[in-house]
Amino acid sequence: MHKHISSLHNPAIKRLLQLQEKSRTRKKEGLFIIEGRREISLALKGGYSIKEIYFNPVLLSAEEVQKLPVSERTEIVEISSEVYEKIAYRGSTEGVIAVAEAKDLSLKNVQLKNDQPLILIAEAPEKPGNIGALLRTADAAAVDAVFIANPRTDMFNPNIIRSSVGCVFTNQIAIGSTTEIIAFLKERKIGIFGAALQASVPYDTIDFTQASAIVVGTEATGLSEEWLENTTQNIIIPMQGEIDSMNVSVAAGILIFEANRQRRR
Amino acid sequence: MHKHISSLHNPAIKRLLQLQEKSRTRKKEGLFIIEGRREISLALKGGYSIKEIYFNPVLLSAEEVQKLPVSERTEIVEISSEVYEKIAYRGSTEGVIAVAEAKDLSLKNVQLKNDQPLILIAEAPEKPGNIGALLRTADAAAVDAVFIANPRTDMFNPNIIRSSVGCVFTNQIAIGSTTEIIAFLKERKIGIFGAALQASVPYDTIDFTQASAIVVGTEATGLSEEWLENTTQNIIIPMQGEIDSMNVSVAAGILIFEANRQRRR
Repeated sequence: MHKHISSLHNPAIKRLLQLQEKSRTRKKEGLFIIEGRREISLALKGGYSIKEIYFNPVLLSAEEVQKLPVSERTEIVEISSEVYEKIAYRGSTEGVIAVAEAKDLSLKNVQLKNDQPLILIAEAPEKPGNIGALLRTADAAAVDAVFIANPRTDMFNPNIIRSSVGCVFTNQIAIGSTTEIIAFLKERKIGIFGAALQASVPYDTIDFTQASAIVVGTEATGLSEEWLENTTQNIIIPMQGEIDSMNVSVAAGILIFEANRQRRR
Repeated sequence: MHKHISSLHNPAIKRLLQLQEKSRTRKKEGLFIIEGRREISLALKGGYSIKEIYFNPVLLSAEEVQKLPVSERTEIVEISSEVYEKIAYRGSTEGVIAVAEAKDLSLKNVQLKNDQPLILIAEAPEKPGNIGALLRTADAAAVDAVFIANPRTDMFNPNIIRSSVGCVFTNQIAIGSTTEIIAFLKERKIGIFGAALQASVPYDTIDFTQASAIVVGTEATGLSEEWLENTTQNIIIPMQGEIDSMNVSVAAGILIFEANRQRRR
């Protein structure tokens, strides 16, 4: 028998909302929320442990929930439509929400299987939508790792999970300070190619078949001084327009797929 | 002396809100709203006519408003902070909003100055943020034109203007049905390269120095049958990830800048 929750006042509901909304609660409890069958499956495939599943039987049958390859210890809870609407993303009809254990995303856990790895690095990215798009691009290009330097949000923010369409679970992701990441790259002799206006060469003149990290900053301020002082070479996407401003995830896509193009040849 | 508005009940305010929110009102009146000094200047530079300027003197002085190169017939109206907050985008401190005349964006007005033009085409794009990012990429790559086939919103939607950071005014944009645009391209012998999975070759095997139109569909359904039946060649961005889903504006950026790379050589 499953547990049932039909009251909005059940303390479990308040806890789920806090895990969704508060980075601090996620950090303190080491847990986060995943919505949707596909996303939950991808997390399981990516080695994440699912603690609890909440499903609304109007939208998803108990049989379908049983098909999710969760462990026997996963608690499965049936919730009413009213409760589901309260905790689900607006308009979502997936019918299932999970509580998962966060992974330790520190650099020390990174494993590079490729001798000439390709790494995408974003410094202090702001918008969850941009981070999601970066992770989708990184998945499509099958980069070896994605590093987020000095993040302004945790990677288990529901808006990042959603906008990445689950790519937060398929990429090897690590979080660290700019100082830590630069040390990591230098130790492994990985070339650091920073997108910048100053002292830069066109991106397509670089040999990206060597061990390479492509680093992008924010749209507002670009890369920090610390990165600029430590790049192997600054690179620029030559622009010929009137405004010459590109979305950061588009710029990262152009750079990563130039590397991908060279590596396919 | 300027006209002053300090009451939220002034009918002019209701009209401004309708021009912001309702595509139908914009179409009927042939007018739209531009927010911000930079955006207004870009629109003027792009040949748009500004009918009215509303400014809040707390945020922007009358002297600064006078510096905008508007015509003598432009009506200039001072508004209170309360009124400004009602009509401005949340948190905006630009202090100025303009009513501009829409341009006729039909294909018959398109002028291609380049013998081997490069055109970016998006079919039925949905999210204003994606359209904005496409227009930023198109500006940066200095494409000859951007066509929107079967649009689901008008180009003068304030969210498109905002997310394009004014690139809606710097690009040559045209709107038309898929049928009309295909006829336009065929008449001018412009190669049609549609992003698609079926019968496609890697995008970087195409010679984009010839007259080329790069066509992208929606993330949900891709290009319509009508486009697929009329492409010169379908192209694909080779993907090697687990999910292989890319944001449409990132994909368009990769394709457009591959063409740009070839044309720079």
